[in-house]
This record gives sequence, C-alpha cells and structure tokens, in this order.
Amino acid sequence: MNKKVAVFRKEHFNAAHRLFNPAWDEKQNDAVFGKCNNPNYHGHNYELEVKVVGEPDPETGYVFDLKKLSDIINENVLEKLDHKNLNLDTVYFENINPTAENIVIVIYEILREKIDEKFDLQIRLYETERNFVEYPV
Amino acid sequence: MNKKVAVFRKEHFNAAHRLFNPAWDEKQNDAVFGKCNNPNYHGHNYELEVKVVGEPDPETGYVFDLKKLSDIINENVLEKLDHKNLNLDTVYFENINPTAENIVIVIYEILREKIDEKFDLQIRLYETERNFVEYPV
Amino acid sequence: MNKKVAVFRKEHFNAAHRLFNPAWDEKQNDAVFGKCNNPNYHGHNYELEVKVVGEPDPETGYVFDLKKLSDIINENVLEKLDHKNLNLDTVYFENINPTAENIVIVIYEILREKIDEKFDLQIRLYETERNFVEYPV
Amino acid sequence: MNKKVAVFRKEHFNAAHRLFNPAWDEKQNDAVFGKCNNPNYHGHNYELEVKVVGEPDPETGYVFDLKKLSDIINENVLEKLDHKNLNLDTVYFENINPTAENIVIVIYEILREKIDEKFDLQIRLYETERNFVEYPV
Amino acid sequence: MNKKVAVFRKEHFNAAHRLFNPAWDEKQNDAVFGKCNNPNYHGHNYELEVKVVGEPDPETGYVFDLKKLSDIINENVLEKLDHKNLNLDTVYFENINPTAENIVIVIYEILREKIDEKFDLQIRLYETERNFVEYPV
Amino acid sequence: MNKKVAVFRKEHFNAAHRLFNPAWDEKQNDAVFGKCNNPNYHGHNYELEVKVVGEPDPETGYVFDLKKLSDIINENVLEKLDHKNLNLDTVYFENINPTAENIVIVIYEILREKIDEKFDLQIRLYETERNFVEYPV
Repeated sequence: MNKKVAVFRKEHFNAAHRLFNPAWDEKQNDAVFGKCNNPNYHGHNYELEVKVVGEPDPETGYVFDLKKLSDIINENVLEKLDHKNLNLDTVYFENINPTAENIVIVIYEILREKIDEKFDLQIRLYETERNFVEYPV
Repeated sequence: MNKKVAVFRKEHFNAAHRLFNPAWDEKQNDAVFGKCNNPNYHGHNYELEVKVVGEPDPETGYVFDLKKLSDIINENVLEKLDHKNLNLDTVYFENINPTAENIVIVIYEILREKIDEKFDLQIRLYETERNFVEYPV
Repeated sequence: MNKKVAVFRKEHFNAAHRLFNPAWDEKQNDAVFGKCNNPNYHGHNYELEVKVVGEPDPETGYVFDLKKLSDIINENVLEKLDHKNLNLDTVYFENINPTAENIVIVIYEILREKIDEKFDLQIRLYETERNFVEYPV
Repeated sequence: MNKKVAVFRKEHFNAAHRLFNPAWDEKQNDAVFGKCNNPNYHGHNYELEVKVVGEPDPETGYVFDLKKLSDIINENVLEKLDHKNLNLDTVYFENINPTAENIVIVIYEILREKIDEKFDLQIRLYETERNFVEYPV
Repeated sequence: MNKKVAVFRKEHFNAAHRLFNPAWDEKQNDAVFGKCNNPNYHGHNYELEVKVVGEPDPETGYVFDLKKLSDIINENVLEKLDHKNLNLDTVYFENINPTAENIVIVIYEILREKIDEKFDLQIRLYETERNFVEYPV
Repeated sequence: MNKKVAVFRKEHFNAAHRLFNPAWDEKQNDAVFGKCNNPNYHGHNYELEVKVVGEPDPETGYVFDLKKLSDIINENVLEKLDHKNLNLDTVYFENINPTAENIVIVIYEILREKIDEKFDLQIRLYETERNFVEYPV
C-alpha cells in the first residue's frame, strides 16, 4: 500500500518587471496594464512555493530532501530571476509578458526537468500577499 | 495545448453576526453555539480568497485581470457584507445561520453569476486565523 | 547590575462594536464615522499584545511567567470582551466610544491593577492587520 | 442536492526530535541528515492544519463544530506530542524516523479513527514557515 | 491629565530600484552593493507603517482618523512611489541612493509637512520581511 | 545635523531546550515550569530580530550593510545555537536556565562585542508567535 505525501519548500526572490504588449499602442497598453505598464519598471518580492508529491523513502522518511529541493530551486530558478529585471535580464520573457501566470509556468518548466518524473510537481507564486497564482491546476 | 493556471485575489471585510437556530430554545442554542449565540452579536475580520482557474490570454498573459476581479468582489460582495450585521443587514441570512460554511456558499453563488462559466471558481474564507472554510471542494 | 527585559504575550478576542457620538445627529455621525456608524454593529478579530518589563528572576530566569500572564489577561480582559458587543455588553463603553484608542486605554487600566507596580506595562491592540494602537507611549 | 464544504482548524505544538537511521553508521547519518542528526536533539514549533470535508448540517449550518474539532485534536494529538521529545516520549516513532512526512501520517491515522467516516480528512503540517507537508494528497 | 496614544496605519507599494554610487567605479559598486547594483533594476513590495502619537479627541475617541491618515499617505507618498522606478521616476533619489534608510527619511519628511506638529510621527518601512528600517529613532 | 535610523535584520534558528532549576526538587520544578520541564526536552523555531541604530553613511546610504549583519549573526549566533540542544550543546546555559529572557541576553552580549560601539543594539526574540522578549529595554 503506497502513501503519497506532498512536501513543500518556500523560497523568495526580488525582481523588476513591466507588463505590456509590444504589438499594441501606448493607449491600449495603458488601458489594459495601467500602472504595471510603467516603461521604467516596478518590482516585487516574489514568494515561491514548490510542491513535490511522492512516497516517503522507508530508509529516510523523506519524500524529497527539502535541503536538496532548496538547492535545486536556488541553482535553477533564483540564480536566474533574483535581483533581475525579468524583461531585460532573462531569456524567458523576451517574447511573453512577465505576468505572474507566465512566470509560474516558466518556473514549473525549469523545475520539471530537474525533478524526477516519478514525483508530481506544482508551483504557487505570490506576487503580493493579495495576488497569487498556481500551476498546474 | 492548453495550460490552465489558477489565479487568486485576497480581500477582507469586517462584520458582526450571531449564530443561533430560531426553532430551538435558548438552552439548546447555548449548548450548540456557546459564546457565538450572544444576542447582541460579536464580530470578525473576514479574509476572503477568490480562486479563478482558466487559460492565460496569449495577448495579455492574464487568466483574469486581478484588478477587475478585485472590483467584482468589491461591488458584489464587500458592498453587501463589509461593516454589516450579517443577520440584520443582509438578505442572505434571513433564513440561514451566518456560519462560515453558509457565508462561503453565499459568496460563491454571488460571484458565480458574475464570472464567465468558462472559468472555474473556488472560495476560501478565514473567520479567524485558526478557523477557515473552502467551497466548493 | 540590573538587566531589564521586556516580555510579550499575544492574545486575541472577537467583538462587535459601533462608533458614534450620541450628542451628535445622524448626519454628523455619518460624516465622521462612516461605515463604522452602522446602528446594527460590525465586528473585528482583535489581536492584543501585552508587554511587561522587569528583571529576570535569578531562580527561574523569568521576568513574568507568560502562562500566568496569559491567565491574567484571559480572566480580566477576554472574559469581559471576547464574543461581546462592546457597546451593549460591557460597562466600559457606556459613556465613551469603543474606538481602538479607547479600548487600549481600558485594557491597560484593567491590567495595571493586576500586575505588580514594579513592572512596566504597555499594550498594543490590532483592530485589523493595517490599523493598530499602542498605550502608553 | 449536496453542497460539500471543507472546514479547517489550525493548532500548534512544540517538540524536540532527531533524524537518523539506526541501521546506518554515523558518517552516513551525517551525510543524509546533517544538522538534523544532532544526538542531543533540536526542536520546532509545529503548526497543524486539519481539514474536514462534509455537508453543512441544515439545523446548525456547521459541517463540523470547530470547537469540537479543536477538542479532538487537543485530546488525541497535542496531549501526546506537545512539549515532547518525539523520539523518546512517544510510541509512534520508536521504529520510524520523525520526519515531517512520518509525523503527518501518524497524525492523520490518529484522527482518522476519531472522525466519522462520512467526512473526508486531510492534514497539513508546518515544521517551519518554509518547510511543510500534506497528507493524504 | 493627558493620555497619549500611538495609532498606526499600514500601507504598501511596489517599486523598482538600483543601489549604486555614481562617484564609484563598477568594481567598487559591485563590491559594496552586489546584486542590488543590477543596472537594469530589481524591485520590492514595500510595507509602510506610519505611527502618529497624540491624545484621543474626547468627542470622537480618535487620535487621528485612520481613514484620513490612509488618504494622506496615498495622496502624498503612494501616488509618487507606487509602481515607480525610484531612481528614474521620482525627484527624491536623483542625488541619493534609494536604500531603505534613505527612502524612510524621504517618506518621513513628506508626511511631517502634512501632519500637524502637535502629533509625533515615526515611520517603519519593510523592504522584505527580513530587512526593515525605522525613522526617527 | 545627524539623522539616526534603525535597521533591522530577521533570522531564525531551531533548538531544543528544557527549563528547570537544578537546586529545586522535581515537584517544585513541575509546579513552576510545567510541560517545559520535560527531562527529554522540547523545542522551538526561534525568530530573531536584530536592531542596529546609527547614521546612514553618506556614500552608501546604509547604516549597516544588512548582508554583513546577517553574516555576523550567522557566524556568531546561529552557528552556536541552530539545531542545538541549548542545555547540552552550548556553553551559555550551563549555569542559567535557557528561558527566552536568558537567551536574548546571551545573544545581545555575543553581538555587542561584534558590532562597533557607535551603533546602538537591541534584540527581539520570538519563542513562539505569541511569546516573545526584547533586550535591552
């Protein structure tokens, strides 16, 4: 009988971004993105929760060593996003808008390649305490 | 290929309420509802989390503009519940007890009519930091 | 050589209240107190922090046993305010408005009589996460 | 027509523990468990969230009286784990490692026997703000 | 007999910034400011606590109407800093580095002119949950 | 004209401890320390806030580089207390009880030697969310 447990690790990073669609004129961008369309950027303290689901190893009692999970997140996600301008300093948002929705998909896809397929993976990202996203659903 | 993302918006409101069943006598109400049956009411700071699930719009990167979601919650829920006596000042709890369970169902039903059917919707309501509810499951 | 240390205990209570000045007409009360003047009351989860300052007892290492401080707060403050209507169910707000400022002074005066004079005492009261008060300064 | 609602109660306890596998030598235990393998133990403030899912009772509006749920958790879980050494003072971790994963399974199994089968049950356990687990998934 | 009470209002804003000293070369800026010297900026969710000290008005029970205090902060501080690039979009940081220390002094000086001299004023600013500042001391 | 600003850095550590007075018999220890006198220890997640007061350096805008402050706390405090048994694994509590009051004094005295005298220093220590201490006052 298997007992699947979810384990969660929370990390944070700080970044600047600007929301706009380059195919639109300024008026339309302002109408849709408002203050988030500031051409000089604004920023956030992002809180990142990574959920990994699997069976505890009988020898360790761990589903996934959270110290190792923290290391994987730091090396593969925070190294690339922390203290960065998401629009200018990363390859991920050259052609897509760095909304919380798109950032959470990017983070999932980065981590999905680093975490063994036998584990389920889900990401929650807080842009502020009151605005957050989760992927996949 | 569709990528569904959940987006969450957190709002808060303050309200007074009293828990009791008018079909019961005082003794039975006290036994079941204890201090919550104070006939002069007591109150809470309610924290409300609204979860909307859908696919990000390729032009905006938004599943649902959280500023618009906040406006919908404010106009349709907070206008009616914030700084109110839930028993006396609202139509929703004339015949049902304003427990957290019933409040969360009422909020869901109000918002379900305002959010397009293509989006899934779920509500979490904190009555205190230690007591909270979620609907639907 | 004395080493004064501050110790803090946090408690919470829920209550209903209404803000208004009975000497004023409805128009003036609405202008000053707005939604807080709802005649049917509204409510809050109050978070209460009690700070006691003194020297640690060399035999115990305690300034003040926080379990005993919790008991004193529960018996003398929470018993009287928790799950109450501050305007109707208490003697403290018969002639004064139950603003956070007046509530924190009332709580200080109740506790000042129960805590030995050799200890300094200060109270912080959160009406919401974003509105709070402290007394004395 | 049934309307299932989830209700949550949050409790906390403090405990000491040590992570190690008695079948391994010291070197292997240090490599896997690091600082958590301190033979003199370390400790945590555990935050425990218990989720119960069912239909609100039409007479009370409650799925499950959260005061009663709190009593059940206190009598059956906190009495046995709070202010304890999980390795030495409990029967649960005589043969298994007190990792968060194993603790959350133990708590689930204790509570599953005390909560009527008609209710679904899920447990979330925070070992720190940044490390937490959930069972079942 | 006067009874001074402190009242606090908490607001938040999001902004981008870069820390560097234009009189220094890149090597020195990197040594001192590290990742905070990213020329493309990074950002934060700033949490702002404004403390006003005075005597409660006997007619209202308010030291300072927190709704009005919120309006003053919004009009005079958040309008100028929220969703801005502190280095490029504001007059305040043309010649000084937008460290948390300098931001909190700027906010104090803006608000000191808008709050009557009879009230004491103190500002606390959280750059992250773990890094924050207070002025004056 | 000098402008003193307070800067704060928050860190955390986990530890086990036991409260008792070796000069007392078991009965007296139980009466005073209750569950905290468990001879097998219990534990906490301690949150530590270090406040340093001084004037911002005109060249950097920093009172004290919080990255350096974090390093000082880690090397001098967390290295010695994190994942330790405070009674058995440290020199500080061989002859004094590891109450929050005594721990906060120990941490202050360690850091006071590492932080230049021109800066004022104050420590706040959370043993739980609801019990915390501050030194000096």
